[in-house]
Amino acid sequence: MDIVIPLFPNFTALDAIGPYEVLRSLPGARITFAAAEPGLVHADNPALAINAAAALSEIESADVLVVPGGGGTRTAMKDETMLAWIRRIHATTRYTTSVCSGSLVLGGAGLLDGLEATTHWSLVKLLESTGAKYTEQRVVQQGKIVTAAGVSSGIDMALTLAAQIAGDDIAKALQLGIEYDPQPPFDAGSPAKAGPEIVALTGMAEG
Amino acid sequence: MDIVIPLFPNFTALDAIGPYEVLRSLPGARITFAAAEPGLVHADNPALAINAAAALSEIESADVLVVPGGGGTRTAMKDETMLAWIRRIHATTRYTTSVCSGSLVLGGAGLLDGLEATTHWSLVKLLESTGAKYTEQRVVQQGKIVTAAGVSSGIDMALTLAAQIAGDDIAKALQLGIEYDPQPPFDAGSPAKAGPEIVALTGMAEG
Repeated sequence: MDIVIPLFPNFTALDAIGPYEVLRSLPGARITFAAAEPGLVHADNPALAINAAAALSEIESADVLVVPGGGGTRTAMKDETMLAWIRRIHATTRYTTSVCSGSLVLGGAGLLDGLEATTHWSLVKLLESTGAKYTEQRVVQQGKIVTAAGVSSGIDMALTLAAQIAGDDIAKALQLGIEYDPQPPFDAGSPAKAGPEIVALTGMAEG
Repeated sequence: MDIVIPLFPNFTALDAIGPYEVLRSLPGARITFAAAEPGLVHADNPALAINAAAALSEIESADVLVVPGGGGTRTAMKDETMLAWIRRIHATTRYTTSVCSGSLVLGGAGLLDGLEATTHWSLVKLLESTGAKYTEQRVVQQGKIVTAAGVSSGIDMALTLAAQIAGDDIAKALQLGIEYDPQPPFDAGSPAKAGPEIVALTGMAEG
């Protein structure tokens, strides 16, 4: 079970690490972080860099492809080298997935044309510019393409994948292993729940 | 607002990246990943390494200290260099925190003696061996010491800290920014909810 997570400059770390932390414990899982060139890739905060062990060009296939989001997706979604790689790997996958604005990269590669998909709540129009039909759900599955909403949703997506790959009991055991019994101190995880004043505080706009 | 996250071999990545992804967006936040020596530190899966930009010895103080867990805590909790550093930084902090088995390191440093604290559900006895009183809550605060339960609980802890540091509205905006509206496909995030058969599947034992 080869799980490949491509990194690019200005990715959002939790988009990648949430699914990683679930999927790495699947029976037989082998994780690979890859990038245009092997070595450190900086996240969207300069304090954090994750090592890409492989070059994208070294990766021939994946059972599960997980594309994270982040500000760098605006470049990645137009980077023909990245997009050609995404299309090539997608042809080999059992699941092609994204978290947050990672769906822009899938869309840029032409994989979401006419499909329902999701992304961060602030990027609906940009997602739809790729031909996708935005769907306000935390995890949206269309055949083997699975997109997740903003950042933290990758954990929920990975548990959904884990259940399909290894069965409900294994997925529950993975959830228990990471003690994923969420108890946020507020109920402000969506624009509708948070309200317009909190949306304004984020500095992001809906749509 | 200096937020310092010490890394050590075999740390659990989500323990560190969950709080990082919340706290890095606090107004004025500056994150530093530090380790015994600067450079790559491997997580508890060999596929993942995060760069430590600083040596522990270069860090003089922190406003918020976040100690992640992972298998490496069993070494870290007895590593006198690490423990002396923890005690030294703790003397300067506004908050000294841990996620998952990171509380074993705080305990090893003598910071939890007689205090209520939490950890991963499988490590209760080991935590109590440091003098802490295990408390089955997702986030346990005793003055400036805040411990969180297993792995994913660091996100909830960080939102709790964010509210105390910057107010409820900013914390809600951070939650909305990472779209933390958790919808796990199962309700199996604690041993009581998952039941004994799923606990057995994890390969871990309660207590």
